[in-house]
Amino acid sequence: MTGWEEYSLITAPETLFKIEHTDVPLSYYTGLLGMAGMSAYAGFFKVCSPKKGETVFISAASGAVGQLVGQFAKLTGCYVVGSAGSKEKVDLLKNKFKFDDAFNYKEEPDLNVALKRYFPDGIDIYFENVGGKMLDAVLLNMKVHGRIAACGMISQYNLKQHEGVHNLIQIVVKQIRMEGFLVFGYYSQYPEYLEMVLPQIREGKIAYVEDISEGLESGPAALIGLFSGKNVGKQVVAVARE
Amino acid sequence: MTGWEEYSLITAPETLFKIEHTDVPLSYYTGLLGMAGMSAYAGFFKVCSPKKGETVFISAASGAVGQLVGQFAKLTGCYVVGSAGSKEKVDLLKNKFKFDDAFNYKEEPDLNVALKRYFPDGIDIYFENVGGKMLDAVLLNMKVHGRIAACGMISQYNLKQHEGVHNLIQIVVKQIRMEGFLVFGYYSQYPEYLEMVLPQIREGKIAYVEDISEGLESGPAALIGLFSGKNVGKQVVAVARE
Repeated sequence: MTGWEEYSLITAPETLFKIEHTDVPLSYYTGLLGMAGMSAYAGFFKVCSPKKGETVFISAASGAVGQLVGQFAKLTGCYVVGSAGSKEKVDLLKNKFKFDDAFNYKEEPDLNVALKRYFPDGIDIYFENVGGKMLDAVLLNMKVHGRIAACGMISQYNLKQHEGVHNLIQIVVKQIRMEGFLVFGYYSQYPEYLEMVLPQIREGKIAYVEDISEGLESGPAALIGLFSGKNVGKQVVAVARE
Repeated sequence: MTGWEEYSLITAPETLFKIEHTDVPLSYYTGLLGMAGMSAYAGFFKVCSPKKGETVFISAASGAVGQLVGQFAKLTGCYVVGSAGSKEKVDLLKNKFKFDDAFNYKEEPDLNVALKRYFPDGIDIYFENVGGKMLDAVLLNMKVHGRIAACGMISQYNLKQHEGVHNLIQIVVKQIRMEGFLVFGYYSQYPEYLEMVLPQIREGKIAYVEDISEGLESGPAALIGLFSGKNVGKQVVAVARE
């Protein structure tokens, strides 16, 4: 919205909204109560139409969006497994965010085998954050009438030639719906989201992890860290503490 | 449903239905009034939710399903372009089925360039019958909020290793919905389909091309021909003429 700067000139003030609820940390409005939260809410509830008892898989699950999708899925009564790229993140998913299970994709020689271990009867809902090889393995493990919400494909962003996905025929065979979405189309539902999530936050039912780096000068390293999975939880750069 | 045979024993007669309307050729019930017709109807109207004025691209467009999707799209007021694999089929699409335009994909060195020529403003709806390289090119040319009905991916069926699709990131960026479907889920809507299509057939508003080979012994060659595009229109094997 603005540049990397200490002071910003906002020329279209109608795009701003006043923060009404200040009993929660203000930084939450950059994530849990901002784009990340709305992405999780729209992608999971609006795109995937989840039902109690369904199985949900989330890639990049400890990220700002993934950690929330997992908790929304648990609150809906789903069985939830996430993948992440370090032992620390896997522990976070299992212990802090209360996923049913989680695994480190870097330690799995065969993602298809890994998914079969956690989902012997298949996956109803896949929340897609990474693309590439993970998507290929997930397609083999989706159930009939499964749904894939495509929120991002971070494994592909910096590749000159994107990896090929070879198992799309599964979309036909299993009548899968795969839908890309961007949060901007859902902002009209922000009040509805706040109404759902603020009581959950106040009652301590939503855990939320931020990785706050201090000072504008820490910004570039924090940005680059996203692509190697250096951050744990939502990456925030605190320009100033007031 | 039955084997390749002159007489069949049907052990579950409740799966059969009586043909009520015999003023149209009986062979139509193997295609236009059978699976192909219902696939076109369900895939186009139910999966894609088309609107008047939208742009529609159909691959393998002269096949049993594609030729009907194109005509349903024209009746809906859409702009329709199809691809096929021979000059004869392209002529059929333009002259017999009244597509707005059509091209021979085998003569296009770059499918992305070809699609940009026919859809300078992009594609709203893609009716997917082939997969692989064509899907990759289409993804680059879809409009925001485009819809892809995945009916089949015939280019991939006989490959040991499926071709990779590299442009799936477009699904996120353009908020595309891609949905696989099988006709079996839609049979309850068969009466609704007949009600729409029978008057169109009787008024001559639907053209339908069959490629009928005579005698059970012609069956294997007819089947193999499907994979090299030998047939023109719906492939039917007439076991006997009564």
